[in-house]
Amino acid sequence: MAASKHRNKTSQDDHRIAVSVIGLGSMGAALAGAFLDAGHPTTVWNRTTAKAAPLVARGATHVRDIEAAVAASPLVIACLTTYDATLQVLAPAASALAGRTLVTLNSGTPANARGLAEWATRHDLRFLDGAVKNVPDAVGKPDTLLLYSGDKAVFDEHQAVLKVLGGDTVHLGTEPDLAKLYEMAVGGTLLPALLGFFQGAALVTSRGKSASTLVPYTVKWLQMICAVLPSLAEEIDTGDYSKPASSLGLFHEGIPYDHEIGAEGNLDVSWLEPMHDLLREAVARGHGEHSISALVELLRKPATAA
Amino acid sequence: MAASKHRNKTSQDDHRIAVSVIGLGSMGAALAGAFLDAGHPTTVWNRTTAKAAPLVARGATHVRDIEAAVAASPLVIACLTTYDATLQVLAPAASALAGRTLVTLNSGTPANARGLAEWATRHDLRFLDGAVKNVPDAVGKPDTLLLYSGDKAVFDEHQAVLKVLGGDTVHLGTEPDLAKLYEMAVGGTLLPALLGFFQGAALVTSRGKSASTLVPYTVKWLQMICAVLPSLAEEIDTGDYSKPASSLGLFHEGIPYDHEIGAEGNLDVSWLEPMHDLLREAVARGHGEHSISALVELLRKPATAA
Ligand SMILES: NC(=O)c1ccc[n+]([C@@H]2O[C@H](COP(=O)([O-])OP(=O)(O)OC[C@H]3O[C@@H](n4cnc5c(N)ncnc54)[C@H](OP(=O)(O)O)[C@@H]3O)[C@@H](O)[C@H]2O)c1
Ligand SMILES: NC(=O)c1ccc[n+]([C@@H]2O[C@H](COP(=O)([O-])OP(=O)(O)OC[C@H]3O[C@@H](n4cnc5c(N)ncnc54)[C@H](OP(=O)(O)O)[C@@H]3O)[C@@H](O)[C@H]2O)c1
Repeated sequence: MAASKHRNKTSQDDHRIAVSVIGLGSMGAALAGAFLDAGHPTTVWNRTTAKAAPLVARGATHVRDIEAAVAASPLVIACLTTYDATLQVLAPAASALAGRTLVTLNSGTPANARGLAEWATRHDLRFLDGAVKNVPDAVGKPDTLLLYSGDKAVFDEHQAVLKVLGGDTVHLGTEPDLAKLYEMAVGGTLLPALLGFFQGAALVTSRGKSASTLVPYTVKWLQMICAVLPSLAEEIDTGDYSKPASSLGLFHEGIPYDHEIGAEGNLDVSWLEPMHDLLREAVARGHGEHSISALVELLRKPATAA
Repeated sequence: MAASKHRNKTSQDDHRIAVSVIGLGSMGAALAGAFLDAGHPTTVWNRTTAKAAPLVARGATHVRDIEAAVAASPLVIACLTTYDATLQVLAPAASALAGRTLVTLNSGTPANARGLAEWATRHDLRFLDGAVKNVPDAVGKPDTLLLYSGDKAVFDEHQAVLKVLGGDTVHLGTEPDLAKLYEMAVGGTLLPALLGFFQGAALVTSRGKSASTLVPYTVKWLQMICAVLPSLAEEIDTGDYSKPASSLGLFHEGIPYDHEIGAEGNLDVSWLEPMHDLLREAVARGHGEHSISALVELLRKPATAA
C-alpha cells in the first residue's frame, strides 16, 4: 500500500484534489484512509479528536475547527451516524461550505436526504448524497459499490475522486434521495434472507447436523436466485406475468411444505404466515398461473390510499 | 455433444452400467438425456408413452411395462411428481426391483422419503433418495448440485454414474430423509428473498425507475449475504453470539426504516411484521448486543412443546 501511494503521488500528484473528511467513525476513517492511500491531500475532523491520530500518522491534516476543516478542501465528505448529526455538525460551517461540494455518505431515509438537499440549496453548496453498500474494510476496493444521487454535473466532476472509495461507483439520477431509496430497496432483502437461512440452520441442527454444512447449498441457492432476478424484473417492468419460469400457483402449493419445516424441526415458522397470505390472496385474484413476480402487485397499495 | 458421446462410448463403454429412468416429465427427460449423452444404456418408462419418443430418437429403449422397465437395469431412477405417484407406479414392480438400486429424485417431505425408505426395506431393494437443486436445463452440468442421502455403500458404488446428472453430487448422511431435509432447509430462503426483491422493485418503480435497474445492486447484496453466512453459521454452531459483525440491536433499530419503505413507495410492508416481532422479542430476551444469528434461538420451539 505504501508503494502504491508513492507511485500515485509521483505520477499524478497534481491531479489529486484536496478532500476534507468529516466524521472518523469506522466508515469515515476508512474513507479518509482510502483518500490518503490514493495520494489526496486529506483534512480530517471528528468530534472525538483522538480518532484523528491514526490518520494523521498516515499523512492526514487534523483540524479541530469545523469551519476550517471544510474550508481546507473544495470537496467535503461527511460520514456521521445520521443526517441529524450531520446537520448539527455542519450548520456552524454553512457559510464556509458555500460554493464547495458536500457529499454525505451516512445511512438514513430518502426523506432525510431530501431534507439535507434543501438545506444545501439554501446555503448555496453543491450536494451529492451517497450510500456505501458495504463494510469499511471494502472501501477502496475495485468491486465496492457506492450509490450516488443528486446534481449530475457535480458527480461527473468528482467521479474519478469518488472512485477512490470503490470502483463500482454509480449515479442513480438527479433527485437527491435516490441513493437512499435504492439503499432501502436493496436492504429490504437482508432480514428475510437471513431469517430464511436461520430457519434452515435450525432445521438441520435439529437433526444434529451443523449449520455450517448448510452454507454451501444456501450459497448455491442464492446464486440461483440471483440468476432469475433479471427475468423477474423484466416481468415486473412489462407487467406481463403470463410466461412464468415458476408459477405463483407452485409457490402456493408449497405452503404445506413450510409447515412441514416447522413440524420436522420443532420450529416456529409463523414469520412466514403473511407471505402465505399473500400467495393465497394472489391466487384468489387469479394470479395462480402467473409468475411469482406478480406478487409485486399485492405489495403496491391502491393509489387512493396514498 | 454427439462427439463427446462418441468419445465416451469408445473409451469407456464397458464401464457404463445400464440405467432405467421412470418418469419422463421435464426433469425425468433431462435425467434420461444426461445418461444417454454419457453413453449409458438407458431404458425409459412413462405413463404417457408419447413422451418417450424424443429419448428413443436419442438412443433410449422404451419399455411400456413397468416390471420390464425396472428389470432392464441394476440402477433405477424414478422422477415422478410425488412420492405417492412413485409408490403407485413402482408397487406392481416391487418384486422385480428386489436386489436392484432405486434412486428417487422427486420433491417431497422428509416424512415422505422415510416412508419410501421403509417400503424399499420391506421389498429388499437398495435405496437412495436425492434432490436436484436446479432446473432440468442444468442437469448434466459440472456445477449442478444434487443432494443424496441413504445407504452410503449404495452411494459409493454408484457415485460415478450419479455424477452424470451433475458434478456437484453430495451424500449428506445415511438417514434416507436428509436430502429432503436439506432441500427444505435451503428452499426456505426462496420466497422471503424474492419478496424482499419484489418489495424493492415496487419501491423503485413507484419512482418511475425500472425494476431492472435494481437487479445488479440486489445481486451484489445477495453476494454480500453469501459472504457472511459462514461466520453466522459458526455462531449458530458454537452458540456464541457475543462477537457480532452486525448486532441484533442494529437490525432492531432498523425497524422504522422498513416502515419508511412502505411510506415512500405506498407499499404494504406488513409481511415484515412477524420479523420485527422476532427482533423485538430477541432484544427483550437480552440479545440486543448479540449477533443477528441469535434469532435462530427464537425460531426453535421449546423441546417440551414437541
Ligand atoms: N460501519 C459500517 O459497516 C457501515 C456500512 C455502511 C454504511 N455505514 C453508515 O456510515 C455512517 C457512519 O457509520 P460508522 O460505522 O462510521 O459509525 P460509528 O463508527 O459509530 O461513527 C459515528 C461517527 O459519527 C459521529 N457522530 C455521531 N453523532 C455525532 C454528533 N451529534 N456530533 C458529532 N459527531 C457525531 C461520531 O463521532 P464520535 O467519534 O465523536 O463519536 C463518529 O465519527 C452511518 O450512517 C452508518 O450507517 C456504516
Ligand atoms: N422441473 C423442475 O424445475 C424441477 C426441479 C427440481 C425438482 N423437480 C422435481 O422433479 C419431480 C418431477 O418434476 P417434473 O418437472 O419432471 O414434473 P412434470 O414435468 O410435471 O412431470 C411429472 C411426471 O410425473 C408423472 N406422474 C405424475 N403422477 C403420476 C402417476 N400417478 N402415475 C404415473 N406417472 C405420474 C408424469 O407422467 P405423465 O407424463 O404421464 O403425466 C410425468 O412423468 C417433481 O417432484 C419436481 O418437484 C423439478
